[in-house]
Amino acid sequence: MGSIGGGILDLTNDSFYYCTMQTRITELFGIDKPIIQAGMIWCSGWELASAVSNAGGLGLLGSGSMYPEVLIDQIKKCKEATQKPFGVNVPLLYPDIDKHIANIIDLGVPIVFTSAGNPAKYTARLKEAGIKVVHVVSNLNFAQKSQDVGVDAIVAEGFEAGGHNGREETTTMCLIPMLKDKIDIPIIAAGGIGTGSTMAAAFCLGAEAVQVGSRFVITPESSAHENFKQEVVNAKDGATELTLKELTPVRLLKNAFYEQIKQAYDEDAGVSSLQEILGRGRAKKGMFEGNMDEGELEIGQISAYINQLKPAATIVEEMMEGFYKTLKALQTL
Amino acid sequence: MGSIGGGILDLTNDSFYYCTMQTRITELFGIDKPIIQAGMIWCSGWELASAVSNAGGLGLLGSGSMYPEVLIDQIKKCKEATQKPFGVNVPLLYPDIDKHIANIIDLGVPIVFTSAGNPAKYTARLKEAGIKVVHVVSNLNFAQKSQDVGVDAIVAEGFEAGGHNGREETTTMCLIPMLKDKIDIPIIAAGGIGTGSTMAAAFCLGAEAVQVGSRFVITPESSAHENFKQEVVNAKDGATELTLKELTPVRLLKNAFYEQIKQAYDEDAGVSSLQEILGRGRAKKGMFEGNMDEGELEIGQISAYINQLKPAATIVEEMMEGFYKTLKALQTL
Repeated sequence: MGSIGGGILDLTNDSFYYCTMQTRITELFGIDKPIIQAGMIWCSGWELASAVSNAGGLGLLGSGSMYPEVLIDQIKKCKEATQKPFGVNVPLLYPDIDKHIANIIDLGVPIVFTSAGNPAKYTARLKEAGIKVVHVVSNLNFAQKSQDVGVDAIVAEGFEAGGHNGREETTTMCLIPMLKDKIDIPIIAAGGIGTGSTMAAAFCLGAEAVQVGSRFVITPESSAHENFKQEVVNAKDGATELTLKELTPVRLLKNAFYEQIKQAYDEDAGVSSLQEILGRGRAKKGMFEGNMDEGELEIGQISAYINQLKPAATIVEEMMEGFYKTLKALQTL
Repeated sequence: MGSIGGGILDLTNDSFYYCTMQTRITELFGIDKPIIQAGMIWCSGWELASAVSNAGGLGLLGSGSMYPEVLIDQIKKCKEATQKPFGVNVPLLYPDIDKHIANIIDLGVPIVFTSAGNPAKYTARLKEAGIKVVHVVSNLNFAQKSQDVGVDAIVAEGFEAGGHNGREETTTMCLIPMLKDKIDIPIIAAGGIGTGSTMAAAFCLGAEAVQVGSRFVITPESSAHENFKQEVVNAKDGATELTLKELTPVRLLKNAFYEQIKQAYDEDAGVSSLQEILGRGRAKKGMFEGNMDEGELEIGQISAYINQLKPAATIVEEMMEGFYKTLKALQTL
């Protein structure tokens, strides 16, 4: 089957591996399925990104945890592993950002997602190089700024998302319709999305694609440590919290490290104490090296109910199938 | 037009005033439209509840701000104002709860929503009286407890909702699918819902009805003070916060009273100081008496983008129309 559309749904075997869907986002990137794998530190190297791109979605390398030479190597490996488009997520606060940007341009990466910073800084340079630019936002102000400086699309990330997040705490359910009212460029929804039904919900709110993080952490292709994957599989209702708001707000699993932070808050510790507890390399220690007590374990609220490790391509296929089945079921109302 | 279904949509004038939709929730309550107006303190008396019920949804009296004799009077007036089913929301921590329960049974109210407490306490007694019982939850544990003690349905309320809320901070986008996996009784989604597109999103997640609070605050029929309605109309992105977690978590507008709380937190004030600042009657002072500085102004995140005062019936109609239009638009994907 080449495409599924017009409300007609044929649930034959393997349909959803081949199915395509058209939105402004799939057209922008030249992809078949509006599913983007979030560029996550320590979790999304070339194996995960190329697997998602090969499945028809868009894979992103998470450059925030990579030295410049590591990113170069990862981009080269990703190019070898897929003929399809892929991208790089670049946190704008990355210390060696100019090297990352230069390397991305030199190596001809077609798509860049920028996050955690001012979109005005690199958008023009990237676009001059023919690169599609997307900026990650969590409020209306930055969405408008992003549009004004000429980014091609935005990721709107809700409070429930894992990792670094906005101070307004606006959830996906509120953020997407609020931005849809005011923003003309296409919106990719993120936060709480990792299944076909949540993808369908995001599209109802006005999204034209979804960005999925947590669900892709628990894949064989993810570079997360096996211990971390297991923790995500086991996580239940209320297992995460958005904390460290005085530094950079981050949603993480409530492990022993989190308890240390919590105790510091209870003892009215200041920013410098929190900074000291956080220290350096916590995220690597947890997510990449598998130290479940001392590491920082960034994951979204959706970890409460995703509990099976599956190949990335299966996730993409299941999401497409779930999306159409969800909408089909509502047609009878 | 008697009903709209099967994915066929006829957008002629006035269609949505008369349209009906069937789910387990509409059947449970005997209503035409799966839209429930939340029972909110100081905002939802008989005028609002009867207007929503007359429009085909389900209106709820918010008994948490009513003395027993006031509730009796409100129930009588609501009965006079509508022939359709309506209900009462009863916060289980209400000091004179036994009187409320007895009066509700005596006066033959057909539907009760209980919240903020243990559903085991009154469900059997209400059900013996032939009353349909719904309990409001914000996590899986209480959803399961509610089902176990025999409630007919649950309201699952996400972090973005106004007023009192759960400690897990689980958003609507995560809460509904998590509960849908584990719970058999029907789910009414709440938190971030007040338009047709958000209603459609909630249905994608597995809800069979929606409960809408904030949007119904800014209606002529709402008993909220005009000053409060205007503040809700004016509220922008990031205007609310879930705070007072050490007492009972509550989402409110960031006014001068909120700044007092914030300062207390900054000064490491304990629970007793917070309790002292909160004092008594803050919610009445703000929402009912219109003191925008000293009052507690409970409202959801959706206040960021709802900005028009409209009659309750218009809201119900617009939501139905938006619901079908949203799903219709996605059929072409």
